[in-house]
Amino acid sequence: MVVEKDDKLILLTNDDGLYAAGLRTLLGVMEEFGKVVLISTTESMSGMSQALTVKTPIRVKVLEENDKHRIYACSGTPTDSVKIAINQLLERAPDWVVSGINHGSNSSVSVLYSGTMAAAIEGCLYGISSVGFSLNNFSPAADFSTCKKYIRLVMKKLAVQPLPEGICLNVNIPASDKKDIKGIKICRQAKGNWKEEFEKRKDPMGKTYYWLKGYFNNHEPDATDTDEWAIANNYVSVVPVTVDMTAHWYTEELKKQFRK
Amino acid sequence: MVVEKDDKLILLTNDDGLYAAGLRTLLGVMEEFGKVVLISTTESMSGMSQALTVKTPIRVKVLEENDKHRIYACSGTPTDSVKIAINQLLERAPDWVVSGINHGSNSSVSVLYSGTMAAAIEGCLYGISSVGFSLNNFSPAADFSTCKKYIRLVMKKLAVQPLPEGICLNVNIPASDKKDIKGIKICRQAKGNWKEEFEKRKDPMGKTYYWLKGYFNNHEPDATDTDEWAIANNYVSVVPVTVDMTAHWYTEELKKQFRK
Repeated sequence: MVVEKDDKLILLTNDDGLYAAGLRTLLGVMEEFGKVVLISTTESMSGMSQALTVKTPIRVKVLEENDKHRIYACSGTPTDSVKIAINQLLERAPDWVVSGINHGSNSSVSVLYSGTMAAAIEGCLYGISSVGFSLNNFSPAADFSTCKKYIRLVMKKLAVQPLPEGICLNVNIPASDKKDIKGIKICRQAKGNWKEEFEKRKDPMGKTYYWLKGYFNNHEPDATDTDEWAIANNYVSVVPVTVDMTAHWYTEELKKQFRK
Repeated sequence: MVVEKDDKLILLTNDDGLYAAGLRTLLGVMEEFGKVVLISTTESMSGMSQALTVKTPIRVKVLEENDKHRIYACSGTPTDSVKIAINQLLERAPDWVVSGINHGSNSSVSVLYSGTMAAAIEGCLYGISSVGFSLNNFSPAADFSTCKKYIRLVMKKLAVQPLPEGICLNVNIPASDKKDIKGIKICRQAKGNWKEEFEKRKDPMGKTYYWLKGYFNNHEPDATDTDEWAIANNYVSVVPVTVDMTAHWYTEELKKQFRK
């Protein structure tokens, strides 16, 4: 793959691994916009958040290359993949970092746990316009074709107006029929949390172990400006995500408390 | 350990593992405030961010119990540890979730990668007043004694005024002599990023591997209201951290762009 000066260079990754259907759909759409370097893991890295690989070395291997894309397998997390691609593998800084399409939504506080969104956040930390895409369907057999239209739409907006420093996009697509999706809605992250219900089991040696499972608890199901509401009502939610985790509205109050 | 109705119940964890000196210092201070349940891993979990263990089961073991504390070893990440403690191990919801003292600062964007801060964020998602403490010294032999005074001070403030929903504290203590520390400064997260410099090596079979290394790049070294400035100038930085990653200031602008 030759990257010309005028080519858009797109770094693509995900957290469901190289063989995920969502990744292949996103690769197809990204090739319409430019040259794509895809880097991901052979295994799934769901729920890896912004984790870094610090105790073991990272391995990278070229799997495939043609005129439109180059594909790497990486042993590290989605965040490692973005870092090593930008620092070691790419011919120049990418124009976009695009992640997904995740199998399952990354709305509300799932943005904190998601490896897909972590990759977008990492791109953003490098000053690159970055987007994470997710489909609200956990099934490996999910139909990603409805996503294409909205991915194109979002990326065309970004091509005209890059994102400001420190902001990336979290795009969640409802798992509805094409005809039922009402369009894009700019939202805020819904307030909520995951309620765990660990499943306790005994292994063949009689020792206890636990499986993490749980369900999402939406604290504001009636608020119509949230990503959760948008997805539940057949809108594609777009949330601008900031890397600044400061609760700015609370700093003055905190100053008062510490002055007492 | 018997937890009476009037006892403060404190959940303590970290990401440097059960044998870290910083954890033991924090345990000692927390025992001044209430009954402590400590849960951590035998190995270090630095840089694990908000990662979840979804592909393997989680194991938990009681290691030690006395009148003041109970200590568990957990095979999962810091976030798993908080989740399983609250859902399976504690007699009731804890009054505080406290994490640290981390070996090394978690200022600026390190809040995104830190397992220590992820544990505090997880406590916060459960509606519990939560704090992560870090000392700006990566050495396992670091002197944590200077931290005690400031940990007491922060926790006394929290005892009077719990944190609002969705906010936890990121406290970073400079690695300075006790006499040189000027006090606590309420700050915002400094803008910056980690610049990677992967170290490329060959294994004995001649195959390439990489070690992740890098340095922090402060984008605003002269801004005096940031955590980075505070620590560099011998203040203990306290940043209120929100679990809401929405860039609220940018939503209207984004709406305009998508309307075009």
